[in-house]
Amino acid sequence: MDCFIIGYDPVGAWMKTSDTVADVLAYRNTGGLSWIHINGLTGPSALQPLTETFNIHPLTVEDILDTEQRPKAEEFAGYLFIILKAILPHEAEITFDQISLILTQDTVITFQERPGDLFKGIRRRILDNIGRIRRMGADYLAYGILDSVVDEYFLALDSLGKRVEDFEERALDENDVSLIADLQKIKQTLIRIRRIIWPLRESLTSLVHLDSTLINLELEPFLKDLQDNVIQVVETLETYRDLLTGVMEVNLSALSNRMNKVMKVLTIISTIFIPLTFIVGVYGMNFAYMPELNFPYAYPITWGVMVLIAAGMLWFFKRRHWL
Amino acid sequence: MDCFIIGYDPVGAWMKTSDTVADVLAYRNTGGLSWIHINGLTGPSALQPLTETFNIHPLTVEDILDTEQRPKAEEFAGYLFIILKAILPHEAEITFDQISLILTQDTVITFQERPGDLFKGIRRRILDNIGRIRRMGADYLAYGILDSVVDEYFLALDSLGKRVEDFEERALDENDVSLIADLQKIKQTLIRIRRIIWPLRESLTSLVHLDSTLINLELEPFLKDLQDNVIQVVETLETYRDLLTGVMEVNLSALSNRMNKVMKVLTIISTIFIPLTFIVGVYGMNFAYMPELNFPYAYPITWGVMVLIAAGMLWFFKRRHWL
Amino acid sequence: MDCFIIGYDPVGAWMKTSDTVADVLAYRNTGGLSWIHINGLTGPSALQPLTETFNIHPLTVEDILDTEQRPKAEEFAGYLFIILKAILPHEAEITFDQISLILTQDTVITFQERPGDLFKGIRRRILDNIGRIRRMGADYLAYGILDSVVDEYFLALDSLGKRVEDFEERALDENDVSLIADLQKIKQTLIRIRRIIWPLRESLTSLVHLDSTLINLELEPFLKDLQDNVIQVVETLETYRDLLTGVMEVNLSALSNRMNKVMKVLTIISTIFIPLTFIVGVYGMNFAYMPELNFPYAYPITWGVMVLIAAGMLWFFKRRHWL
Amino acid sequence: MDCFIIGYDPVGAWMKTSDTVADVLAYRNTGGLSWIHINGLTGPSALQPLTETFNIHPLTVEDILDTEQRPKAEEFAGYLFIILKAILPHEAEITFDQISLILTQDTVITFQERPGDLFKGIRRRILDNIGRIRRMGADYLAYGILDSVVDEYFLALDSLGKRVEDFEERALDENDVSLIADLQKIKQTLIRIRRIIWPLRESLTSLVHLDSTLINLELEPFLKDLQDNVIQVVETLETYRDLLTGVMEVNLSALSNRMNKVMKVLTIISTIFIPLTFIVGVYGMNFAYMPELNFPYAYPITWGVMVLIAAGMLWFFKRRHWL
Amino acid sequence: MDCFIIGYDPVGAWMKTSDTVADVLAYRNTGGLSWIHINGLTGPSALQPLTETFNIHPLTVEDILDTEQRPKAEEFAGYLFIILKAILPHEAEITFDQISLILTQDTVITFQERPGDLFKGIRRRILDNIGRIRRMGADYLAYGILDSVVDEYFLALDSLGKRVEDFEERALDENDVSLIADLQKIKQTLIRIRRIIWPLRESLTSLVHLDSTLINLELEPFLKDLQDNVIQVVETLETYRDLLTGVMEVNLSALSNRMNKVMKVLTIISTIFIPLTFIVGVYGMNFAYMPELNFPYAYPITWGVMVLIAAGMLWFFKRRHWL
Repeated sequence: MDCFIIGYDPVGAWMKTSDTVADVLAYRNTGGLSWIHINGLTGPSALQPLTETFNIHPLTVEDILDTEQRPKAEEFAGYLFIILKAILPHEAEITFDQISLILTQDTVITFQERPGDLFKGIRRRILDNIGRIRRMGADYLAYGILDSVVDEYFLALDSLGKRVEDFEERALDENDVSLIADLQKIKQTLIRIRRIIWPLRESLTSLVHLDSTLINLELEPFLKDLQDNVIQVVETLETYRDLLTGVMEVNLSALSNRMNKVMKVLTIISTIFIPLTFIVGVYGMNFAYMPELNFPYAYPITWGVMVLIAAGMLWFFKRRHWL
Repeated sequence: MDCFIIGYDPVGAWMKTSDTVADVLAYRNTGGLSWIHINGLTGPSALQPLTETFNIHPLTVEDILDTEQRPKAEEFAGYLFIILKAILPHEAEITFDQISLILTQDTVITFQERPGDLFKGIRRRILDNIGRIRRMGADYLAYGILDSVVDEYFLALDSLGKRVEDFEERALDENDVSLIADLQKIKQTLIRIRRIIWPLRESLTSLVHLDSTLINLELEPFLKDLQDNVIQVVETLETYRDLLTGVMEVNLSALSNRMNKVMKVLTIISTIFIPLTFIVGVYGMNFAYMPELNFPYAYPITWGVMVLIAAGMLWFFKRRHWL
Repeated sequence: MDCFIIGYDPVGAWMKTSDTVADVLAYRNTGGLSWIHINGLTGPSALQPLTETFNIHPLTVEDILDTEQRPKAEEFAGYLFIILKAILPHEAEITFDQISLILTQDTVITFQERPGDLFKGIRRRILDNIGRIRRMGADYLAYGILDSVVDEYFLALDSLGKRVEDFEERALDENDVSLIADLQKIKQTLIRIRRIIWPLRESLTSLVHLDSTLINLELEPFLKDLQDNVIQVVETLETYRDLLTGVMEVNLSALSNRMNKVMKVLTIISTIFIPLTFIVGVYGMNFAYMPELNFPYAYPITWGVMVLIAAGMLWFFKRRHWL
Repeated sequence: MDCFIIGYDPVGAWMKTSDTVADVLAYRNTGGLSWIHINGLTGPSALQPLTETFNIHPLTVEDILDTEQRPKAEEFAGYLFIILKAILPHEAEITFDQISLILTQDTVITFQERPGDLFKGIRRRILDNIGRIRRMGADYLAYGILDSVVDEYFLALDSLGKRVEDFEERALDENDVSLIADLQKIKQTLIRIRRIIWPLRESLTSLVHLDSTLINLELEPFLKDLQDNVIQVVETLETYRDLLTGVMEVNLSALSNRMNKVMKVLTIISTIFIPLTFIVGVYGMNFAYMPELNFPYAYPITWGVMVLIAAGMLWFFKRRHWL
Repeated sequence: MDCFIIGYDPVGAWMKTSDTVADVLAYRNTGGLSWIHINGLTGPSALQPLTETFNIHPLTVEDILDTEQRPKAEEFAGYLFIILKAILPHEAEITFDQISLILTQDTVITFQERPGDLFKGIRRRILDNIGRIRRMGADYLAYGILDSVVDEYFLALDSLGKRVEDFEERALDENDVSLIADLQKIKQTLIRIRRIIWPLRESLTSLVHLDSTLINLELEPFLKDLQDNVIQVVETLETYRDLLTGVMEVNLSALSNRMNKVMKVLTIISTIFIPLTFIVGVYGMNFAYMPELNFPYAYPITWGVMVLIAAGMLWFFKRRHWL
């Protein structure tokens, strides 16, 4: 587990890193705002200094440590507690990382499931005094953190979008089972992402409706904007799902058509040659008394009859638009 | 970027065009109403004179410049902010154009994503004093602008409707994969249009419910009428989708039927001739002792048997309604 | 355009017809109630006398003349405005007729899209003093008019119901594409009817909730009854849609079964005779040294083997329940 | 039409039957509670004594006589009016019977569509003083009547459940169209039952929310219990529908599998013997100069080649898991 | 029937077991809290001592004894009544066990349908004074009991999840009907579980909204946490259902593909050899005058023609991507 603490006010900002929560807590900023980040979760005992200092409810600690939580936002005495999931796109596979956030009057505490560095951008904005972040309250920092997680969603969506488009081209040509299996895999990824983002939308709504004193009125347009982004992610996911459904329909239809064409070729060849083969079979019989066999023009006449039959068949298929 | 400003009051109206926002702002009408239109978006710096004059929130500027926004209506201090999408039907392909609108007490500011001339009609109505527009407030002008965007939707719907009807005729005859691929394309167009119009409905509702002082009570029936139009567009889109689903079902069913007929022809020809070919094969064997071969009437009798078998088969197929 | 006006009070009733709205307006009943009906719509100018007398909002006039409106109920200053659709069952095809209704304190004005005589029944009830209509207010007249339109729906439903039942019988026997095409047509009719009736339900609800002084408390049970009827129409339509879906499933399943049977016949005939044909082909070869050919019992033995093979095949098919 | 009236109070109970409503009304209990039941509906005139005595609204009378009503609960001046449907399971076919109930302060009036004896149980409970019914008010009697109707639903569900289970066994073996047709029939029965029970749930909710003085506070847990039962009926119906959908999927899949197996047998037999038949055909040709024909070991070599080809084919099919 | 009673307060805890409810009631704790558990249900008479002591409503007793109840939470005079279902995973089959819970100010009474020992964990937590349970009220005990039931759901989900994953692997290879039948069975299990858990969510919501004095404000975050767990169970079930639907689609698509390949092999073999067999048949005819037969190079030329035809066919299949 490694942690950092950032202290800042409109005038200045500093950052300390350490391996233990207690160390980091010692640096807590009394005048200005503090952001404590804990990377990688080990157990309740490691968090004890935090829970005591900020008077955190045991259920909150349980939720932080249980990485299978749904996104949610809850108000407890003295703090707001928010859980959401970050998307980590590792090549083809998409994995989720649980981010927990505690917002008090002058401190934001964040917990990340696995070691990583999601918040590089926002850290630089504080330390280098970019934008308005230094002049705003702890609630704006919390917003900034949520916003940078949601921005990651869009990156993940883009790479998903490219994979969906690839399928559209493959659907017309391929008819391998692997296409369908791949489709199912990407569909499940869509469903999984949707499932972690959908509750986020609700929790943002509840954040606004909680009417907590911890959130400034001024922050409302920002939260609404965040909510709009989340809705847009969900809608894009739905567009992708519709596209995939369309891909499957096209693929199924292509398969049926191909089967139909195969059947037609078989039928045309069979129905032309089966009667002809019968005719030549007739004159291959060894009966002692078959008058035709000795008739001089029998052979060319037989050929003529067979050509006529074949032509008739072809005309029949033409009329039925099978050719 | 090119802009224009129109100033008007019940008595008169004038219009100025320019390349910069600052130029156009200088002409702002003090006594009456002003409409500032900015065509094509470059960056936040070009909009700076506007944002300063009208005290526009940074999030609004961001939303205006980000052309991937969902339609929405929001109230900020001193102004209402509305985003919606115009449909530009370029032949077969449909593209969207983001329109942003800011409504203050005496000014309407509109931003259009790409250069174009969507608002020719409403401009003429102001300048030539057609209808009631000159006697009404800035909110009515905003309504007029929204209304002319929604009217474009109906034109786009009409051309879509014609393409959907074409499919109905093609579905019974064609069984090419291209039909399904085309169907999927038009279906996606429907989905895309629905996705930009659906939130518009909500944002119109929220406009009414905002209860903003910027919108007159008198305007309410007009907004409701606009909302009715938007609902009608959505319902027409759904009708089209139902029609397309029906087209697919008819096409699939036609394909199955054709396959069934192909199979029947194959089965009838095969089942009639395969047994006959066996019989003629029997008498083509070269066994030294085959008494039938020397029997005088064997050949015509064989023919008779074969005709009987064929007739029996045909009777069997007739009874099963395969012919 | 032809119009009529009916004046009535508990004591008496009279009716005048004319070609112009102005004529009819002159007869307006001052003491009692008036019902003005305008048949066939030409343009806004023809309605001008009405709009002036009753102070009708320009949007209402627009809605009356635009025959593509969704059913709705709106309150304006001094009157209620209701739009609904009448169903005109012309043989197989179903067409809609837009009915607009304006309800003031003492007058009901109705507009019908196309010339016709939908309201014969209610006219007679007033003129012949049948039921309570003469003793009730203008709101009851409006209710009566709506009710007679909704009653027409039930007639249309009955004829649709008969056509749906016909399909149930055809689905098991027919496997023509025309069946599916017909099914789609009737399905679309159901969807179209549903789409004009669904909003009617909402508008009846809003009528009750408007709490307008134009509608008596006493009328509420009647409006609720009307709403119940509309819900019943919608539910019947849904039952029909479920029935049609069932019909399609039965038809598809029947088609698959038939295909399966065709395949089985082909397979049985082929798999029995193909090996036999091979055997007779073997002994039709012209090799100089084929010992079997000169063996005296070769021919009957070959027959025996072939009968055994055929019997074995039949036994195999029997065991697999293919026969 | 036959009617009965039951009068009761905590002390005693009596019952009279008659053919006319007027007769029965004469016995009405002044001190205690009365239950008037009318079996079989003829027309409004027969009900006149009732409508006058209890001041029943004309719409209520209409609803009682129209047996196509949806279940509903409405409050009128002086009484509550409830419509619901009883299920009468006549062997395989399920029919509905409309029950109307009027609840006044001291009287319950019930109307049954067709002659029958649904309420035997509750009658005995009153007359024999079983349970608490004699000590409770008219609202409890009404509850008891509704409850006995809902109890019948469970009986009907049980017999439906058995039929659904039968299908599960048939789905794997049968592939007749009749199975699908039967399935559709039972599905429609489920839909029809659901359609009459669903509104009952709403009307029970509205009964509680009406807050009528006719219903004691004490009755609320009983009504909630009734509502729970109705919800359970609806959920059981949905379970059955899911089961039927599953049955159809299994049946379709079984059909496809069987078709696939038929195709494989055909393909294996054909692909093995068609090439062999070609080979024997080659040596059945009558060319004057065919050197192989006179080669001494040609015949056994040909057999060897054919056995090799057949074995190769079988190996190929084995590798593809077709055998 | 066997029962136990546990009495506890912050200072101490004890437990008594007995066979009759009356015995157990005698030990009821007057100062502290009591938990009475009744294992296995026989009839209303056995519960009589309880119903009298705690003044339990007859409907509650009915609900406890009817093991087909939906989960619900209701408030009665003096107590809260909660029904939920425990999942007992007996190997492959999943069975449900109804748990009823009565919460009074100082007592929790639980009823379990079948004998078993679900609450071992919570019993130990009281008796060994683990966690906060001894310091909290009766409502916290009730929460603990509900929580331990919900925890069992997660165990059941895990074993279901493993079975679902097994299907994913089987779907690509197997095409037996048993796969679909198995799929249906597991789908029904999912549906059954969902049906008992869904209402639990509502009843937890209603518990919070009841605003009963029996539930401390302090308990609210615990109930919310419980509700979150229940939602997570439902969402996991839905994920499984989506996975199963995907499995079915993959399986169906694999089946279609296999059929398509079988058809192609049949078609390729047939269309190559049928024309060749016709040619060799021609020269097997016994006509007296067939000039080719005596032409010296006829035999090799015939072979050449046949090789050319076969090669042409193969080229044709190659071009169509059938090989």
